[in-house]
Amino acid sequence: MKELEDRIREEGTVKAGDVLKVDTFLNHQCDVALFDRMGDEWAKHFAGRPVNKILTIEASGIGIACAAARHFGNVPVVFAKKAQSINLEGEQYVTTIYSFTKQREFPVIVAKKFLSENDHVLIIDDFLANGKALGGLLDICDAAGATVEGIGIAVEKGYMGGGDRLRERGYDVDSLAIVESMDPQTGDIEFRS
Amino acid sequence: MKELEDRIREEGTVKAGDVLKVDTFLNHQCDVALFDRMGDEWAKHFAGRPVNKILTIEASGIGIACAAARHFGNVPVVFAKKAQSINLEGEQYVTTIYSFTKQREFPVIVAKKFLSENDHVLIIDDFLANGKALGGLLDICDAAGATVEGIGIAVEKGYMGGGDRLRERGYDVDSLAIVESMDPQTGDIEFRS
Repeated sequence: MKELEDRIREEGTVKAGDVLKVDTFLNHQCDVALFDRMGDEWAKHFAGRPVNKILTIEASGIGIACAAARHFGNVPVVFAKKAQSINLEGEQYVTTIYSFTKQREFPVIVAKKFLSENDHVLIIDDFLANGKALGGLLDICDAAGATVEGIGIAVEKGYMGGGDRLRERGYDVDSLAIVESMDPQTGDIEFRS
Repeated sequence: MKELEDRIREEGTVKAGDVLKVDTFLNHQCDVALFDRMGDEWAKHFAGRPVNKILTIEASGIGIACAAARHFGNVPVVFAKKAQSINLEGEQYVTTIYSFTKQREFPVIVAKKFLSENDHVLIIDDFLANGKALGGLLDICDAAGATVEGIGIAVEKGYMGGGDRLRERGYDVDSLAIVESMDPQTGDIEFRS
């Protein structure tokens, strides 16, 4: 998606430690008009898939997932929670994932009542790097017996291989911008063409 | 907002410990069509206010804030973060709030570049109980010198007084459903008329 690549080039900053900051429009401040156009891109890519639910993970995934849902007939968005809350009770799917940005492991939880073998799920998230967070969501879909119709990602770090490993496993991964290399010295960002 | 009150009556469950669960449509599974109509309600209430930014807090506020932004000319949504991340660097506004649902204190952070004295902010959140989370967002707006044009809340626990204390301080608080009482024994929920 050229608009997203342009935006990353213009406003993204590359930091040491393999960090790409896009907080001006994606995951701290949110450009909702851009989110809407991203949702439209995913709707075109996944057209014809019987998506009846969007699954994402708090927090940065929620805004883009809610924007995307409008392009899939206002299907419900379920967001996986990263910590136990007193409001979460009843049966739950639980898995553990390691966060690159928070540098620790944490539990990921979805209430069982929101995901079942009748669901055809589109997974949406803002970033895909090594694929660990996404792996947690796929584990939860497997546990529920839900069908994963596709995976929509805003920014994939292509050089980390997580997206390609998922494609090799047969998942339809549509990343709107795939970073092939980025240089913290020069700030240069190259995208997969 | 009658639709929201009806939905809370139909799907909300009252639990011991003053917990109102509305996770089927508001804060675990999200009904984005409802979110859109909630945004429209806030747009009517705050019509004429020069809102140029929406401020919310992760995670449950993000979906409704992004839906609301569409009704305010696609203004940017900034969501306050609840924990330090390696992606958050530079100058930050930081405060500490106590979460009723998580039963612990945590830091709340907004990067300084996203909030300044030029901003006219609409604060959006899913719940308002004692007002502590909201107080943290107001502290951050004060620290930035931003003008708070209003506060849009989905569900206010009116009997806890947090909303009325904010109204007494002069804030325009528009809560779409105000719970005046709820009974964990019978499940009855009464709304302010």
